[in-house]
Amino acid sequence: MSASLKDATRKATLTTPSDREIRVERVFDAPRDRVWQAFTDPKLVAQWWGRGNKLVIERLELEKGGHWRFVEHGPDGVHGFEGRYREVTPPTRLVNTFEWDGMPGYVILETVTFEEAGSGRTKVVNTSLFYTTEERDGMLASGMEGGLNEGYAALDRLLASMG
Amino acid sequence: MSASLKDATRKATLTTPSDREIRVERVFDAPRDRVWQAFTDPKLVAQWWGRGNKLVIERLELEKGGHWRFVEHGPDGVHGFEGRYREVTPPTRLVNTFEWDGMPGYVILETVTFEEAGSGRTKVVNTSLFYTTEERDGMLASGMEGGLNEGYAALDRLLASMG
Repeated sequence: MSASLKDATRKATLTTPSDREIRVERVFDAPRDRVWQAFTDPKLVAQWWGRGNKLVIERLELEKGGHWRFVEHGPDGVHGFEGRYREVTPPTRLVNTFEWDGMPGYVILETVTFEEAGSGRTKVVNTSLFYTTEERDGMLASGMEGGLNEGYAALDRLLASMG
Repeated sequence: MSASLKDATRKATLTTPSDREIRVERVFDAPRDRVWQAFTDPKLVAQWWGRGNKLVIERLELEKGGHWRFVEHGPDGVHGFEGRYREVTPPTRLVNTFEWDGMPGYVILETVTFEEAGSGRTKVVNTSLFYTTEERDGMLASGMEGGLNEGYAALDRLLASMG
Protein backbone atom coordinates (compact mmCIF):
# COMPACT_ATOMS: atom_id res chain seq x y z
CA MET A 1 0.00 0.00 0.00
CA SER A 2 1.39 3.40 -0.89
CA ALA A 3 1.82 6.03 1.80
CA SER A 4 -0.89 8.22 0.32
CA LEU A 5 -3.46 5.40 0.29
CA LYS A 6 -2.58 4.47 3.85
CA ASP A 7 -3.07 8.10 4.96
CA ALA A 8 -6.40 8.32 3.21
CA THR A 9 -7.81 5.38 5.17
CA ARG A 10 -6.39 6.26 8.58
CA LYS A 11 -9.07 7.86 10.77
CA ALA A 12 -8.78 9.39 14.21
CA THR A 13 -10.50 7.46 17.02
CA LEU A 14 -13.10 9.65 18.70
CA THR A 15 -14.61 8.76 22.09
CA THR A 16 -16.50 10.55 24.88
CA PRO A 17 -14.83 9.61 28.19
CA SER A 18 -17.24 11.79 30.21
CA ASP A 19 -20.37 13.82 29.48
CA ARG A 20 -18.32 17.00 28.97
CA GLU A 21 -15.36 15.61 27.02
CA ILE A 22 -14.31 14.50 23.57
CA ARG A 23 -11.15 12.41 23.22
CA VAL A 24 -9.42 12.04 19.88
CA GLU A 25 -6.56 9.58 19.37
CA ARG A 26 -4.42 9.35 16.26
CA VAL A 27 -1.08 7.73 15.44
CA PHE A 28 1.37 9.51 13.11
CA ASP A 29 4.26 7.91 11.20
CA ALA A 30 6.90 10.26 12.56
CA PRO A 31 9.06 10.55 15.68
CA ARG A 32 7.71 12.55 18.59
CA ASP A 33 10.05 15.53 18.27
CA ARG A 34 8.94 16.04 14.68
CA VAL A 35 5.24 15.82 15.59
CA TRP A 36 5.75 18.28 18.45
CA GLN A 37 7.42 20.69 16.03
CA ALA A 38 4.52 20.41 13.58
CA PHE A 39 2.08 21.33 16.37
CA THR A 40 4.07 24.25 17.76
CA ASP A 41 6.23 25.90 15.05
CA PRO A 42 4.10 28.59 13.37
CA LYS A 43 5.65 27.97 9.94
CA LEU A 44 4.71 24.28 10.17
CA VAL A 45 1.26 24.79 11.75
CA ALA A 46 0.39 27.08 8.83
CA GLN A 47 0.96 24.14 6.46
CA TRP A 48 -1.61 21.70 7.88
CA TRP A 49 -3.97 23.23 10.49
CA GLY A 50 -6.08 24.96 7.82
CA ARG A 51 -6.65 21.65 5.94
CA GLY A 52 -5.45 23.14 2.67
CA ASN A 53 -7.01 26.58 3.26
CA LYS A 54 -4.81 29.62 3.72
CA LEU A 55 -4.02 29.98 7.43
CA VAL A 56 -2.63 33.17 8.94
CA ILE A 57 -0.86 32.65 12.25
CA GLU A 58 -1.47 35.99 13.97
CA ARG A 59 -0.05 34.86 17.32
CA LEU A 60 1.63 31.72 18.59
CA GLU A 61 3.36 32.55 21.85
CA LEU A 62 4.50 29.11 22.94
CA GLU A 63 4.76 29.53 26.72
CA LYS A 64 2.51 29.38 29.75
CA GLY A 65 0.16 32.36 29.48
CA GLY A 66 1.00 32.99 25.82
CA HIS A 67 -1.81 33.65 23.37
CA TRP A 68 -2.44 32.00 20.03
CA ARG A 69 -4.69 33.18 17.20
CA PHE A 70 -5.08 31.55 13.79
CA VAL A 71 -7.25 32.89 10.94
CA GLU A 72 -8.40 30.43 8.29
CA HIS A 73 -9.39 31.78 4.87
CA GLY A 74 -11.70 29.13 3.44
CA PRO A 75 -14.19 28.96 0.59
CA ASP A 76 -17.03 29.64 3.08
CA GLY A 77 -15.38 32.70 4.61
CA VAL A 78 -12.84 33.80 7.17
CA HIS A 79 -12.76 32.03 10.53
CA GLY A 80 -10.72 33.13 13.52
CA PHE A 81 -9.68 30.79 16.33
CA GLU A 82 -7.82 31.74 19.47
CA GLY A 83 -6.85 30.78 22.97
CA ARG A 84 -4.10 30.78 25.52
CA TYR A 85 -1.51 28.27 26.70
CA ARG A 86 -2.04 26.88 30.19
CA GLU A 87 0.85 24.41 30.04
CA VAL A 88 3.70 23.89 27.54
CA THR A 89 5.88 20.83 28.25
CA PRO A 90 7.96 19.88 25.18
CA PRO A 91 7.74 17.35 23.64
CA THR A 92 5.01 15.59 25.65
CA ARG A 93 2.14 17.86 26.65
CA LEU A 94 0.28 21.02 25.62
CA VAL A 95 -2.73 22.43 27.47
CA ASN A 96 -4.52 25.37 25.90
CA THR A 97 -7.90 26.97 25.52
CA PHE A 98 -9.70 27.01 22.17
CA GLU A 99 -12.40 29.44 21.06
CA TRP A 100 -13.94 30.01 17.62
CA ASP A 101 -14.92 33.60 16.76
CA GLY A 102 -18.31 32.31 15.61
CA MET A 103 -19.18 31.23 19.16
CA PRO A 104 -17.29 33.65 21.41
CA GLY A 105 -17.15 32.71 25.08
CA TYR A 106 -17.71 29.02 24.35
CA VAL A 107 -14.21 28.21 25.49
CA ILE A 108 -12.90 24.65 25.29
CA LEU A 109 -9.95 23.39 27.33
CA GLU A 110 -7.71 21.16 25.19
CA THR A 111 -5.08 18.79 26.58
CA VAL A 112 -2.81 17.31 23.91
CA THR A 113 -0.34 14.57 24.75
CA PHE A 114 2.39 13.16 22.53
CA GLU A 115 3.49 9.56 23.26
CA GLU A 116 6.13 7.49 21.53
CA ALA A 117 4.29 4.60 19.88
CA GLY A 118 7.24 2.47 18.71
CA SER A 119 8.83 2.08 15.26
CA GLY A 120 9.34 5.85 15.03
CA ARG A 121 5.63 6.56 15.37
CA THR A 122 3.83 8.95 17.73
CA LYS A 123 0.39 8.75 19.33
CA VAL A 124 -1.34 12.09 19.76
CA VAL A 125 -4.29 12.23 22.18
CA ASN A 126 -6.39 15.40 22.23
CA THR A 127 -8.95 15.66 25.04
CA SER A 128 -11.38 18.59 24.90
CA LEU A 129 -13.28 19.65 28.01
CA PHE A 130 -16.45 21.76 27.59
CA TYR A 131 -18.34 23.84 30.17
CA THR A 132 -21.52 21.82 29.59
CA THR A 133 -22.74 18.61 27.93
CA GLU A 134 -24.86 20.72 25.55
CA GLU A 135 -21.74 22.54 24.32
CA ARG A 136 -19.93 19.21 23.89
CA ASP A 137 -22.85 17.74 21.95
CA GLY A 138 -23.01 20.86 19.76
CA MET A 139 -19.39 20.28 18.79
CA LEU A 140 -20.05 16.58 18.04
CA ALA A 141 -22.97 17.58 15.78
CA SER A 142 -20.93 20.22 13.93
CA GLY A 143 -19.12 17.89 11.55
CA MET A 144 -15.89 18.30 13.50
CA GLU A 145 -14.82 14.72 12.76
CA GLY A 146 -14.52 15.35 9.03
CA GLY A 147 -12.51 18.52 9.52
CA LEU A 148 -10.31 16.79 12.03
CA ASN A 149 -9.47 13.93 9.69
CA GLU A 150 -8.76 16.38 6.86
CA GLY A 151 -6.38 18.29 9.14
CA TYR A 152 -4.62 15.14 10.30
CA ALA A 153 -4.29 13.90 6.68
CA ALA A 154 -2.63 17.23 5.83
CA LEU A 155 -0.38 16.73 8.85
CA ASP A 156 0.54 13.22 7.61
CA ARG A 157 1.70 14.77 4.33
CA LEU A 158 3.70 17.48 6.11
CA LEU A 159 5.38 14.97 8.44
CA ALA A 160 6.34 12.76 5.47
CA SER A 161 7.87 15.77 3.70
CA MET A 162 9.95 16.57 6.82
CA GLY A 163 11.45 13.05 6.92
CA MET B 1 -26.86 55.52 59.69
CA SER B 2 -24.61 57.36 57.29
CA ALA B 3 -24.17 56.06 53.77
CA SER B 4 -20.56 55.13 54.39
CA LEU B 5 -21.39 53.06 57.48
CA LYS B 6 -24.22 51.31 55.64
CA ASP B 7 -21.85 50.49 52.76
CA ALA B 8 -19.28 49.12 55.16
CA THR B 9 -21.73 46.61 56.63
CA ARG B 10 -23.41 45.45 53.42
CA LYS B 11 -21.90 42.16 52.26
CA ALA B 12 -22.53 40.19 49.10
CA THR B 13 -24.32 36.85 49.54
CA LEU B 14 -22.14 34.03 48.26
CA THR B 15 -23.55 30.54 47.59
CA THR B 16 -22.52 27.43 45.62
CA PRO B 17 -25.57 26.31 43.60
CA SER B 18 -23.67 23.39 42.03
CA ASP B 19 -20.25 21.79 42.47
CA ARG B 20 -18.76 23.93 39.67
CA GLU B 21 -20.41 27.27 40.41
CA ILE B 22 -20.20 30.29 42.69
CA ARG B 23 -23.19 32.62 42.89
CA VAL B 24 -22.82 36.12 44.29
CA GLU B 25 -25.85 38.31 44.97
CA ARG B 26 -25.71 41.98 45.97
CA VAL B 27 -28.25 44.81 46.04
CA PHE B 28 -27.16 48.33 45.07
CA ASP B 29 -28.97 51.59 45.96
CA ALA B 30 -29.22 52.81 42.37
CA PRO B 31 -31.53 52.28 39.41
CA ARG B 32 -30.72 49.51 36.97
CA ASP B 33 -29.60 51.72 34.06
CA ARG B 34 -27.04 53.39 36.30
CA VAL B 35 -25.71 50.07 37.58
CA TRP B 36 -25.48 48.71 34.02
CA GLN B 37 -23.49 51.82 33.04
CA ALA B 38 -21.09 51.34 35.95
CA PHE B 39 -20.43 47.74 34.81
CA THR B 40 -19.96 48.54 31.12
CA ASP B 41 -18.64 52.09 30.59
CA PRO B 42 -14.81 51.93 30.69
CA LYS B 43 -14.52 55.35 32.40
CA LEU B 44 -16.81 54.15 35.21
CA VAL B 45 -15.38 50.62 35.48
CA ALA B 46 -11.95 52.19 36.02
CA GLN B 47 -13.30 53.92 39.14
CA TRP B 48 -14.41 50.85 41.13
CA TRP B 49 -13.24 47.51 39.65
CA GLY B 50 -9.68 47.98 40.97
CA ARG B 51 -10.94 48.51 44.55
CA GLY B 52 -9.00 51.74 44.88
CA ASN B 53 -5.99 50.53 42.92
CA LYS B 54 -5.10 52.09 39.58
CA LEU B 55 -6.93 50.17 36.85
CA VAL B 56 -5.99 50.47 33.17
CA ILE B 57 -8.80 49.47 30.82
CA GLU B 58 -6.84 48.18 27.84
CA ARG B 59 -9.90 46.83 26.02
CA LEU B 60 -13.64 46.88 26.68
CA GLU B 61 -15.40 46.01 23.43
CA LEU B 62 -18.99 45.76 24.63
CA GLU B 63 -20.53 43.44 22.05
CA LYS B 64 -20.85 39.73 21.40
CA GLY B 65 -17.34 38.50 20.58
CA GLY B 66 -15.68 41.64 21.91
CA HIS B 67 -12.62 41.31 24.14
CA TRP B 68 -11.99 42.98 27.48
CA ARG B 69 -8.68 43.37 29.32
CA PHE B 70 -8.12 45.26 32.58
CA VAL B 71 -4.74 45.73 34.29
CA GLU B 72 -4.71 46.46 38.02
CA HIS B 73 -1.68 48.18 39.54
CA GLY B 74 -1.78 47.23 43.21
CA PRO B 75 0.68 47.33 46.10
CA ASP B 76 1.51 43.64 45.47
CA GLY B 77 2.18 44.07 41.76
CA VAL B 78 0.51 44.29 38.38
CA HIS B 79 -2.34 41.90 37.61
CA GLY B 80 -3.95 41.48 34.21
CA PHE B 81 -7.46 40.11 33.72
CA GLU B 82 -9.15 39.41 30.41
CA GLY B 83 -11.95 37.66 28.61
CA ARG B 84 -14.50 37.92 25.89
CA TYR B 85 -18.20 38.77 25.74
CA ARG B 86 -20.51 35.88 24.91
CA GLU B 87 -23.75 37.86 25.37
CA VAL B 88 -24.45 41.58 25.88
CA THR B 89 -28.12 42.41 26.57
CA PRO B 90 -28.49 45.91 28.06
CA PRO B 91 -29.53 46.54 30.76
CA THR B 92 -30.30 43.04 32.03
CA ARG B 93 -27.63 40.48 31.18
CA LEU B 94 -23.91 40.13 30.48
CA VAL B 95 -22.17 36.81 29.81
CA ASN B 96 -18.39 36.86 29.52
CA THR B 97 -15.33 34.81 30.19
CA PHE B 98 -12.84 35.77 32.91
CA GLU B 99 -9.18 34.80 33.10
CA TRP B 100 -6.42 36.07 35.42
CA ASP B 101 -2.90 36.27 33.91
CA GLY B 102 -1.58 34.46 37.00
CA MET B 103 -3.52 31.31 36.08
CA PRO B 104 -3.76 31.40 32.28
CA GLY B 105 -6.17 28.93 30.73
CA TYR B 106 -8.24 28.65 33.91
CA VAL B 107 -11.15 30.35 32.20
CA ILE B 108 -14.33 31.10 34.16
CA LEU B 109 -17.69 31.74 32.49
CA GLU B 110 -19.49 34.60 34.24
CA THR B 111 -23.21 35.35 33.86
CA VAL B 112 -24.23 38.69 35.39
CA THR B 113 -27.90 39.67 35.65
CA PHE B 114 -29.31 43.03 36.67
CA GLU B 115 -32.82 42.99 38.21
CA GLU B 116 -34.92 45.89 39.44
CA ALA B 117 -35.31 45.42 43.19
CA GLY B 118 -37.85 48.15 43.98
CA SER B 119 -37.39 51.62 45.50
CA GLY B 120 -34.82 52.50 42.86
CA ARG B 121 -32.53 49.63 43.85
CA THR B 122 -30.93 46.94 41.68
CA LYS B 123 -30.03 43.34 42.43
CA VAL B 124 -26.90 42.08 40.68
CA VAL B 125 -26.38 38.32 40.52
CA ASN B 126 -23.02 37.05 39.27
CA THR B 127 -22.79 33.30 38.63
CA SER B 128 -19.34 31.90 37.81
CA LEU B 129 -19.00 28.50 36.15
CA PHE B 130 -15.63 26.70 36.39
CA TYR B 131 -14.31 23.74 34.34
CA THR B 132 -13.88 21.65 37.50
CA THR B 133 -14.83 21.58 41.18
CA GLU B 134 -11.13 21.86 42.08
CA GLU B 135 -10.86 25.14 40.14
CA ARG B 136 -14.02 26.44 41.83
CA ASP B 137 -12.69 25.49 45.27
CA GLY B 138 -9.35 27.15 44.49
CA MET B 139 -11.20 30.39 43.81
CA LEU B 140 -13.20 30.07 47.05
CA ALA B 141 -9.95 29.58 49.00
CA SER B 142 -8.24 32.56 47.33
CA GLY B 143 -9.79 35.27 49.50
CA MET B 144 -12.04 36.34 46.62
CA GLU B 145 -14.87 37.28 49.01
CA GLY B 146 -12.87 40.09 50.62
CA GLY B 147 -11.81 41.52 47.27
CA LEU B 148 -15.36 41.24 46.00
CA ASN B 149 -16.81 43.18 48.92
CA GLU B 150 -14.11 45.85 48.56
CA GLY B 151 -14.99 46.22 44.89
CA TYR B 152 -18.70 46.42 45.57
CA ALA B 153 -18.14 48.99 48.34
CA ALA B 154 -16.19 51.10 45.83
CA LEU B 155 -19.08 50.62 43.40
CA ASP B 156 -21.55 51.82 46.08
CA ARG B 157 -19.53 55.03 46.41
CA LEU B 158 -19.39 55.54 42.64
CA LEU B 159 -23.14 54.94 42.24
CA ALA B 160 -23.90 57.43 45.02
CA SER B 161 -21.70 60.04 43.32
CA MET B 162 -23.57 59.50 40.03
CA GLY B 163 -26.96 60.26 41.69
